[in-house]
Amino acid sequence: MRQRLSCDQYVNGILAGDRLLLSRAITLIESRHPDDQLLAQDVLSTVLAKSSTNFNSTRVGITGVPGVGKSSFIEILGAHLTGLGHRLAVLTVDPTSQRSGGSLLGDKTRMEQLSMNPNAYIRPSPAGDSLGGVAHRTRETLLLCEAAGFDVILIETVGVGQSETVVHGMVDFFLLLMLAGAGDELQGMKRGIMELADALAITKADGDNIPSANRARVEYQNALHLFPPTDTGWYPPVLTCSATTGDGIDHIWQTIVEHQQLTRRSGYHTTHRHEQQLAWFRSLLRHELDSRFFKQPAIRAKLEAIEKQVKAGTLFPVQAVQSLLGSPEES
Amino acid sequence: MRQRLSCDQYVNGILAGDRLLLSRAITLIESRHPDDQLLAQDVLSTVLAKSSTNFNSTRVGITGVPGVGKSSFIEILGAHLTGLGHRLAVLTVDPTSQRSGGSLLGDKTRMEQLSMNPNAYIRPSPAGDSLGGVAHRTRETLLLCEAAGFDVILIETVGVGQSETVVHGMVDFFLLLMLAGAGDELQGMKRGIMELADALAITKADGDNIPSANRARVEYQNALHLFPPTDTGWYPPVLTCSATTGDGIDHIWQTIVEHQQLTRRSGYHTTHRHEQQLAWFRSLLRHELDSRFFKQPAIRAKLEAIEKQVKAGTLFPVQAVQSLLGSPEES
Repeated sequence: MRQRLSCDQYVNGILAGDRLLLSRAITLIESRHPDDQLLAQDVLSTVLAKSSTNFNSTRVGITGVPGVGKSSFIEILGAHLTGLGHRLAVLTVDPTSQRSGGSLLGDKTRMEQLSMNPNAYIRPSPAGDSLGGVAHRTRETLLLCEAAGFDVILIETVGVGQSETVVHGMVDFFLLLMLAGAGDELQGMKRGIMELADALAITKADGDNIPSANRARVEYQNALHLFPPTDTGWYPPVLTCSATTGDGIDHIWQTIVEHQQLTRRSGYHTTHRHEQQLAWFRSLLRHELDSRFFKQPAIRAKLEAIEKQVKAGTLFPVQAVQSLLGSPEES
Repeated sequence: MRQRLSCDQYVNGILAGDRLLLSRAITLIESRHPDDQLLAQDVLSTVLAKSSTNFNSTRVGITGVPGVGKSSFIEILGAHLTGLGHRLAVLTVDPTSQRSGGSLLGDKTRMEQLSMNPNAYIRPSPAGDSLGGVAHRTRETLLLCEAAGFDVILIETVGVGQSETVVHGMVDFFLLLMLAGAGDELQGMKRGIMELADALAITKADGDNIPSANRARVEYQNALHLFPPTDTGWYPPVLTCSATTGDGIDHIWQTIVEHQQLTRRSGYHTTHRHEQQLAWFRSLLRHELDSRFFKQPAIRAKLEAIEKQVKAGTLFPVQAVQSLLGSPEES
């Protein structure tokens, strides 16, 4: 067993950009052990108090259906970013890892080049029994990475369940990767995801695919023009790229930079991050309230039977709540 | 002061289709008085136990920006429906009525013809301090209307705040009304609303507007083809209509009927209503848990200060939750 480190050792290591200590601190965050959790919170709050503001970082969410080429895209975007002098952390929010122990994403070996790049840090998805828990730990990990000097954070998600909404709630920019051609582009895509996107990128736009990628780009661009702009007045562009040739990768990054400049100038960037922080607190608070309530064995025993009746329509929601909670003490 | 009625009087009146008693029962539902609330719950559960299944009803949500012509649309659709022998109830979910006492929707006089039609029943939006509360009362009202023999329920919303999501959660079919022409169609429209829609209808497609309405129809239809289908495999069509000439109104209703037939055949209709019922219960339960928690004066006093710190980034969400709730008694 490894020697237990002190809070100061973690903090100093992280602030010095020590990757090993960063990794161990993240493992601490992901631990279920109460002692680890206490220490993790100490480390986090000390690191955040000591690190300068992280408002200079760029947080980008990336999603797309399996097969769209997320790993290859992140490989090549990562090489481009480190070439520009950025330090890059890649995190994942992957609800599939909760269920199977395996994961649709999450394996470092998917990004061979990037995982050997000294200016990139790849951290697979934490396990967890709920998307809320995974998301919470990913947020904390994100903050640690920023404190360790990573200025671009890519958060990848496979877009299962509500994961893309959750990732959308922790980033500055949300990028949707799409395939071109023959209806494939809709395979497995979720309704509602398009309207979260700050940009669409058609992947695999190389060789014989170029004409269909361009056709898809025009079609989606026309479609998106019929949509309301985002809160910032930003109209999401549709771009094409190839992880094979590298075409379009710089343009995508340039688009993200422009969006960052626009939102920083308008003040939206700061406001938005404050709102995200508040939303995080509220979801944690609610989660904690719920878990303290549903942890009670008497409640759990009752709940299942009640939900069955509600679903069947034999018990009315208001009465179901009353039978679970009792009447309120005051009106 | 009116004489207080017994539960049986309400129940028998409603099941006999007595509009006066229906209205008084709805007023009871909307009342804040604890005695009224108890009686309302008795009436509701007795009515629901006695009325035959309401799975034959059709629940339609209608939304669109102010100026799109929702009232005129409902006037003429209502006339069409009563002409077909349907009995129609029109309810509203209007978050603006919470704040101002006034309302963007809600006034019976907006639908002059329909309000005099013996087979139509129009009920303005209930007041309430939260959208959740308004939505809850609207659901209960919907059930009473069905028990009173109304087989088509239209629920109108102005699409402010989260109201369209809330309405989407209580209907079988969600219709988005839109204006054609010159960018106006996006004025005030919310991102995300398009992907809730089971159909789009371009309004005011008459006279000189016909060409632009048709153009808009084609454009939106092309755009929607790039979207994933709904859970039912239904591809939302784009239609045009005019409340002035009546053109297209029958086609819109026919579309809704087809959707109902499709989802009833596939079993989705029943499953979906069961899910909605369960979601209603869960949101009520959560609402009640929250309100019991946040009602505590000590919590309320602390919360405001804490949220300010969280927003400013000086207090970390996990610690904020701990300082509000204390440490959990067990891990």
